[in-house]
Amino acid sequence: MHGDPCTCRKDTVDTLDTRLTRQLDLRCPIVSAPMAFAAGGALAAAVTRAGGLGLIGGGYGDAAWLEQQFALAEGERVGVGFITWSLAKQPGLLDTVLRHRPRAVMLSFGDPRPFGDAIRAAGAALFCQCQDMTHVRQALEAGAIAIVAQGTEAGGHGALRGTLSFVPEVADHLAAHAPDTLLLAAGGIADGRGLAAALMLGADGVLMGTRFWATHEALVKPTHHGAILAADGDATLRTRTPDIVRQLPWPPGFTARIRRNAFTQRWHGREDALQAALDVETPRYRDAWEAGDIEQAAVWFGEAAGLVHAIEPAAEVVRRTVNEAFERLRTAPS
Amino acid sequence: MHGDPCTCRKDTVDTLDTRLTRQLDLRCPIVSAPMAFAAGGALAAAVTRAGGLGLIGGGYGDAAWLEQQFALAEGERVGVGFITWSLAKQPGLLDTVLRHRPRAVMLSFGDPRPFGDAIRAAGAALFCQCQDMTHVRQALEAGAIAIVAQGTEAGGHGALRGTLSFVPEVADHLAAHAPDTLLLAAGGIADGRGLAAALMLGADGVLMGTRFWATHEALVKPTHHGAILAADGDATLRTRTPDIVRQLPWPPGFTARIRRNAFTQRWHGREDALQAALDVETPRYRDAWEAGDIEQAAVWFGEAAGLVHAIEPAAEVVRRTVNEAFERLRTAPS
Ligand SMILES: Cc1cc2nc3c(=O)[nH]c(=O)nc-3n(C[C@H](O)[C@H](O)[C@H](O)COP(=O)(O)O)c2cc1C
Ligand SMILES: Cc1cc2nc3c(=O)[nH]c(=O)nc-3n(C[C@H](O)[C@H](O)[C@H](O)COP(=O)(O)O)c2cc1C
Repeated sequence: MHGDPCTCRKDTVDTLDTRLTRQLDLRCPIVSAPMAFAAGGALAAAVTRAGGLGLIGGGYGDAAWLEQQFALAEGERVGVGFITWSLAKQPGLLDTVLRHRPRAVMLSFGDPRPFGDAIRAAGAALFCQCQDMTHVRQALEAGAIAIVAQGTEAGGHGALRGTLSFVPEVADHLAAHAPDTLLLAAGGIADGRGLAAALMLGADGVLMGTRFWATHEALVKPTHHGAILAADGDATLRTRTPDIVRQLPWPPGFTARIRRNAFTQRWHGREDALQAALDVETPRYRDAWEAGDIEQAAVWFGEAAGLVHAIEPAAEVVRRTVNEAFERLRTAPS
Repeated sequence: MHGDPCTCRKDTVDTLDTRLTRQLDLRCPIVSAPMAFAAGGALAAAVTRAGGLGLIGGGYGDAAWLEQQFALAEGERVGVGFITWSLAKQPGLLDTVLRHRPRAVMLSFGDPRPFGDAIRAAGAALFCQCQDMTHVRQALEAGAIAIVAQGTEAGGHGALRGTLSFVPEVADHLAAHAPDTLLLAAGGIADGRGLAAALMLGADGVLMGTRFWATHEALVKPTHHGAILAADGDATLRTRTPDIVRQLPWPPGFTARIRRNAFTQRWHGREDALQAALDVETPRYRDAWEAGDIEQAAVWFGEAAGLVHAIEPAAEVVRRTVNEAFERLRTAPS
């Protein structure tokens, strides 16, 4: 297959250059997602140390937890991500976090425009995660230096566009309207094949969630890690049920991709009934979550579950993804 | 950007070799989808002539129409595709069609196993379009020589998996269980970026529908072509409404991706009400369809609409897709 045996195995490649790596001074174009509850300082630091960019999950905005996670990042230049509609309810949190001089701030799920100036002024790179073309236009108005085009296969919250068609459409939009703005692909990417594909689609890099959720550094219960190892990519669905039961006011249009289980079996499609039963169901759900019960509380991963076969150190995921992408690109048909 | 000016522009590339092209004796790994009503003999022949493989849309099985379309293919070695659950209701149709010695028969949306032997015996290549891992296992039992892994971004009928995560998961399954079986990616692919990405994901080629729907040879009303030119990739949804109003017994799990319009606005989410109003709504829908009304009847395209900016000859689509893929692969970062 390969012409020159000397270059046949390059197991030591750990750099892959794109506009993203050059602009953010990374060794590889891999960003770990700011996964609520799961992406703490240890994961973010490990990804940054491995040459990518790690983002702490700002989630629903617990200031004390965030302080702790920045401490755990031990001075690595990590970034942070917020759920924008939630940040809008406690905008002071942004200042608290900007004091840690994050390398980047990613905003998702809401209008980023009110926050752009403060983020830029603090010297952080503004990433905006977008689910449709309207979001992309808002992100450019907010002054994003990078658009993260998130497809529906993503774990966690998201919307309806598929990654494979959305990324090149955003690339065309940026080429026409904001050619210096970087583009990352997110949703369904868990290995070097996905990274190589994203680059072909016009992205400058990838953001991966599910794959980093399945690492030693992620703050994930062992039973949940067990569930992803047993799952294929068909095992998930998009649903509002975990947001309803947790009483989180997610705006319309966004749903959560989680594992199908007894909880979703019971309530998905019966959202009104769940809403009416919160007195009982909310505490029951919380207890199940605390107990690590994978049937009665949500388990958060995406379709990329079908590509995850081991819980590993985050650095190993970065290394293998870069190597595999490099190999794919090098041996492409022509 | 480019090192050697001599290889900078290779506008004349029209071959791209993969296992698919070698096994089916094609010049490029591009298959046009057997789109019901839209993919006739002229389109299939044009794609085959351009070096790919064109499939006539067997749709719901109109024998006289199929005879006509094979005649219009003028002896080109085209293939044909069937909606499997519909074919199962009139299995005799398969023999009629096999007499035309199709290069390939693609089966989608139903259990292909009852048809595998007859298709192989006629010397046609069996392609099975799959929407989840269960379908893939059935397709292998049916003896498919190629799996078409179809993602949810696809125009027309389909299901829920996203192309970007589904294709590599199927590739892994084939590598482990049926390494000689070919793999095509479908859903959201409309240009060389999508083709290059599909190859990176482990596919041997692509099947494109929406992009070929927007060609001169497709049997599509001018008003419908106008609608795709005005649409971006956010313009569609997955819905059962057109199947309900046409009184087509689609099995659960499959929905149609069509353009959002006044019809879907009115009935999507109100399926029971539509079901109860068929006496009025079915004839109304048929009239709107005949009249080319893009608001009161379905317009069939997928998210790749955001990548379609002109109605062109099919051969031009093939040529540009191959060239663009070639360029992307050649100038990949490393
Ligand atoms: C467990 C989990 C939690 C997530 N939480 C957030 C979040 O709080 N904020 C956010 O912007 N995205 C969140 N996401 C989505 C990611 O940012 C990203 O889009 C997604 O993980 C990419 O798809 P993938 O999971 O297929 O890699 C979460 C994803 C997962 C898997
Ligand atoms: C107008 C239209 C009609 C379709 N009809 C059929 C069909 O009859 N049988 C079938 O197997 N697939 C059908 N499909 C789906 C295609 O086989 C294919 O999966 C899809 O077009 C790929 O996604 P794309 O549209 O993004 O290229 C149709 C697609 C479109 C756009």
